[in-house]
Amino acid sequence: MKNYREMTPAERAQERAEVQAHYQRLKDLNLKLDMSRGKPGKDQLDSVSDILTVLTDPADCICEGMDVRNYGFMTGAPAARRLMAELLGCRPEEVMMGGSSSLALMYGLVMRGYCFGMTRSPVPWSQVPGRKWLCPVPGYDRHFKITEVFGFEMIPVPMTPDGPDMDLVEELVKDPLVKGIWCVPKYSNPDGIVYSQETVERFAKLEPAAPDFSVIWDNAYCVHEFEGDYLPFPDIIGMCREAGHPDLVYEFASTSKITFPGAGISCMASSEANVAFQAKLLGVQMISYDKVNQLRQVMYLKDKEHTLAVMKKHAAILQPRFACVLRWLENEIAPRGLGHWQTPKGGYFVSFFTLPGLAKRTVALCREAGVVLTDAGATYPLGKDPQDSNIRIAPSLPPVHELEAAMEVLCTSLELAALEQMG
Amino acid sequence: MKNYREMTPAERAQERAEVQAHYQRLKDLNLKLDMSRGKPGKDQLDSVSDILTVLTDPADCICEGMDVRNYGFMTGAPAARRLMAELLGCRPEEVMMGGSSSLALMYGLVMRGYCFGMTRSPVPWSQVPGRKWLCPVPGYDRHFKITEVFGFEMIPVPMTPDGPDMDLVEELVKDPLVKGIWCVPKYSNPDGIVYSQETVERFAKLEPAAPDFSVIWDNAYCVHEFEGDYLPFPDIIGMCREAGHPDLVYEFASTSKITFPGAGISCMASSEANVAFQAKLLGVQMISYDKVNQLRQVMYLKDKEHTLAVMKKHAAILQPRFACVLRWLENEIAPRGLGHWQTPKGGYFVSFFTLPGLAKRTVALCREAGVVLTDAGATYPLGKDPQDSNIRIAPSLPPVHELEAAMEVLCTSLELAALEQMG
Repeated sequence: MKNYREMTPAERAQERAEVQAHYQRLKDLNLKLDMSRGKPGKDQLDSVSDILTVLTDPADCICEGMDVRNYGFMTGAPAARRLMAELLGCRPEEVMMGGSSSLALMYGLVMRGYCFGMTRSPVPWSQVPGRKWLCPVPGYDRHFKITEVFGFEMIPVPMTPDGPDMDLVEELVKDPLVKGIWCVPKYSNPDGIVYSQETVERFAKLEPAAPDFSVIWDNAYCVHEFEGDYLPFPDIIGMCREAGHPDLVYEFASTSKITFPGAGISCMASSEANVAFQAKLLGVQMISYDKVNQLRQVMYLKDKEHTLAVMKKHAAILQPRFACVLRWLENEIAPRGLGHWQTPKGGYFVSFFTLPGLAKRTVALCREAGVVLTDAGATYPLGKDPQDSNIRIAPSLPPVHELEAAMEVLCTSLELAALEQMG
Repeated sequence: MKNYREMTPAERAQERAEVQAHYQRLKDLNLKLDMSRGKPGKDQLDSVSDILTVLTDPADCICEGMDVRNYGFMTGAPAARRLMAELLGCRPEEVMMGGSSSLALMYGLVMRGYCFGMTRSPVPWSQVPGRKWLCPVPGYDRHFKITEVFGFEMIPVPMTPDGPDMDLVEELVKDPLVKGIWCVPKYSNPDGIVYSQETVERFAKLEPAAPDFSVIWDNAYCVHEFEGDYLPFPDIIGMCREAGHPDLVYEFASTSKITFPGAGISCMASSEANVAFQAKLLGVQMISYDKVNQLRQVMYLKDKEHTLAVMKKHAAILQPRFACVLRWLENEIAPRGLGHWQTPKGGYFVSFFTLPGLAKRTVALCREAGVVLTDAGATYPLGKDPQDSNIRIAPSLPPVHELEAAMEVLCTSLELAALEQMG
């Protein structure tokens, strides 16, 4: 195997004929494979399905003076707040429980900022023409979509191996129109980068011009190692408190990738003032979230130690899938010089960068051959990847034998796209 | 017993001394009773707690090609859509499932109208200065709070024994600034009034000036009879379709008062166009609602026939509570001529009207004596009851022996308030 750029035109022509034939053979298999979303596979769901039977006795529903079967307690069941606080390293009183979706909590936060303003807002964000939001790239498409629909100009901030480029972030927040930033601090979506201690400290010490600048700290993968042991991670809420910026950060987490996706529980952690402010606004929206499911999750997960044991079961299922993806990239893409990637140890994605200008074509070729990937560009605001390079690979759903086929299609499609481009 | 207004001043003075002494004795009991909210009692929760054990086998989680334990299917599990459609009398494709709170779905609908506009909006509601909303009174305080926070001027519409005053509604909707109306069509909150067939037909045929006028049809008590058999009720969605106004109405329901309050499932029913439009906007907010709980509710409730059988268990618990409240009003208030009330056969409230000017004082006296009622005025927009007359009594939570005590306090408090006023 040879780097494509080092081939002679004749060599490339021959390679193209071979790759084209290979691609056609793969297409003829009529595959139907999905690597588009961070959905756990059936084996992961089965491994945690004992949660269906932990809460069967009505007597268990009455705990700490609260009947979880009835209305009330907007901030959630105390036991659930304690569990999530333990996972995040913050205090229970800094945690407010949500429903089955942390994305819905984040959307709600931005929506309330837009309609009513945040704890320290001079005016609601809807009344701030030219409002802006910082978007580390590549990032999570669903984050970007939220700030898109609420009319923020989204400013890309490049990711480094230590997290977002903090020199740039510190510069950009001098603009009072900049109202917030999206962060996935541990195993970032999609790069799988863990923010360094220094990055987290610089966030806690951030001095934005806007009094209502909000760091959205989506700690979606706080205990989600698939390779190696649990990696301790700093508590941003406590660090902000100590830095004298208690209201700066809103942290989010859920059990969607601990128990059942879309049927777990979520939470927001922030200063007690922010929690009180948000709970008051949320009280207009609903009476309380589903506390029966909060209790069910607590009974199943018990505490941090047991939760980490549950995560080991997920890791055992996920690790071979990631290994498969990385092996294909290593064996097929590296020698041909067609791209580079991060090697994550947790999270749900492999962030793969093709040579510039090849991502869209590669994803389209994959789709034609029956392999669905996240749309090229999705990891950038408005779906616009200026380099047309990043592809988010989500290996969690298909079993390994299907991943093998899907990765063969992906590598072949990229090879074909590269050869088409090189002419 | 004598009507207070027919008493001589001397008789009233003597009565006042006696009532004052009676009130003091009650106060000395140091009661702590709550008739403020439509919360079911523990016996109701126990009667449906078998729902905790209906879904224990992981194999049950895969139904109709969907694994309810995983992400996806924004509009909900098909079996849940069918169940709710059967309860409401509409088509499954007109139903979109929500989470554990129908109030959150209603808030979401108004919020999206405010931020983004409805299916037929020329502009989002936030861009309509002087926007207005019709509020049948007395009504549900949580409804009014939603339109309050989104900046609608709320126009009270009197309730009649057949529903809202439709002559007035038809007149008011000629104003294009009027964007919607709150309705609880069956066992209205708080009056317990069932809208007549004619009222429902007039809603379906409504010709509002605003193309995005929205009837919010909160069918919270669609199967919630506590006295007598299930009362069939017209399907507003089908009637709107047939009247050529398919997008006019958004209907809501939940299982909060069928299974567990705040831990059941909710739905919105509307035209397929409205469902598609809302589902698209909701797709920015979350990936999908909790389908495990959707399936759990379906497995427990099975179908309409079985749901009505479950409701009979609730009725057997609720009926004596309502009978107790009504007996006290009949025996103590009627002879003294101090108020009037509706006699509901379903729902969760007794709507009681004192003589003008006595509600606030009565509720305050109750509170002093340890009995919490819904704040006087809460059943009117901005909490302002122009007559200071309506008190919403919620008898569902306390056991009957506590209700006896609470009603004694309520009647005595009203008597005292009336005698104070009459001087």
